[in-house]
Amino acid sequence: MNVFLVSAHPEPKSFNSAMARQIVDVMTEAGHEVVVSDLYAMNFNPVASAADFTARSNPDYLVYALEQRNGVKAGTIAPDIARELDKLDSCDLLILNFPVFWFSTPAILKGWIDRVLVSGRSYGGMRFYERGGFAGKRAAVSISLGGRPHMFGDEGIHGQLTDMLRHLLRGTLYYVGFDVVPPFTAWHVPYVSDEDRQTILKEHREWLARIDTLEPMRFPRMDEFDERLYPKT
Amino acid sequence: MNVFLVSAHPEPKSFNSAMARQIVDVMTEAGHEVVVSDLYAMNFNPVASAADFTARSNPDYLVYALEQRNGVKAGTIAPDIARELDKLDSCDLLILNFPVFWFSTPAILKGWIDRVLVSGRSYGGMRFYERGGFAGKRAAVSISLGGRPHMFGDEGIHGQLTDMLRHLLRGTLYYVGFDVVPPFTAWHVPYVSDEDRQTILKEHREWLARIDTLEPMRFPRMDEFDERLYPKT
Repeated sequence: MNVFLVSAHPEPKSFNSAMARQIVDVMTEAGHEVVVSDLYAMNFNPVASAADFTARSNPDYLVYALEQRNGVKAGTIAPDIARELDKLDSCDLLILNFPVFWFSTPAILKGWIDRVLVSGRSYGGMRFYERGGFAGKRAAVSISLGGRPHMFGDEGIHGQLTDMLRHLLRGTLYYVGFDVVPPFTAWHVPYVSDEDRQTILKEHREWLARIDTLEPMRFPRMDEFDERLYPKT
Repeated sequence: MNVFLVSAHPEPKSFNSAMARQIVDVMTEAGHEVVVSDLYAMNFNPVASAADFTARSNPDYLVYALEQRNGVKAGTIAPDIARELDKLDSCDLLILNFPVFWFSTPAILKGWIDRVLVSGRSYGGMRFYERGGFAGKRAAVSISLGGRPHMFGDEGIHGQLTDMLRHLLRGTLYYVGFDVVPPFTAWHVPYVSDEDRQTILKEHREWLARIDTLEPMRFPRMDEFDERLYPKT
């Protein structure tokens, strides 16, 4: 497999960064090719703007998605975006590794999503979910957070973590066609012992070993809706 | 009321930017004080990093939330963050106005959340939800998107929009104590007629007129859980 790891942590010595390194090590040892975008190390620009296009189809009025569509076709999309798109095109498995900030990605990774998952290539008006641009590829998120498992789940104070992450798992990764496997979650990371951290890293290795056979999460399919996106009866 | 508007759109001539201007106009005419952070115009830095602290409690290992806590107390938090915090402290009503990017905020606004909703002031270990740092204040989101209403809701292909936005409405705004009123949503914006846009702006004005009396969204409360955050029986 070609594996594309996108990681985002401001502290290279963090536990989350150790998870990122472990992804590289485990997947490389398993014989896969691994390409890494370490967004903090790259000083990645997360702000979608007019500067993302070397030429504009409408220089007077920015419709970002429209310029993305034209920019990819015309080769006028910013080089840093084009490079990330090439990595995406080449991968079989995308892994996002990040610390959960506000039940979502750090802004630097949100900006990677905003800028790199371009309209036209990633999705189009009637091409999303199982018809998304990256259909046939697999995606996974590998995350750390401060909370504990009992704070999540149907009886937990925050409900299911996957419901909090729905905008990412379903609204982003599945939206553009990926088969999304259940996340790996390192719980309570700032507070656990070194021994517990070793246990988490071991579980993380085991998850990585199974990642290409894990059953993807189930979401609604476009096939269940008609051409105007009303439910088929 | 003191109103704090945080807006984020890369095109000042956009419909979403017109919504932002309307918020200022309507709330000012109603006799409220309005303070604005237009994140694109400010060139706001969305990337949480070690540079957010002029002095560090631990210069060798960045634990971002911990440095936030210390930085706010010691006055060593970056000036751009301190200014936004002052605006938050002074407001009675926070309005986030933005185009929905990937069922969430544009990265520049996500970074405002990451950097400005500092640990210690906004929340603490056992101080979130109705005990959050901004309890007693009200928050609202004012958004535009390309989708149509029938694509959302229990039978819609994407489910309820508020479920997609749960990380923001519940996991962020309610988490730090705000009473969160139901969002204003401008649907299908890139595709509608000028007449429809005028109708949307009229509905937006009506929503703004009611914003301080709207019933807040209901979420679980810390009071329903014990001191270890297990459900009270």
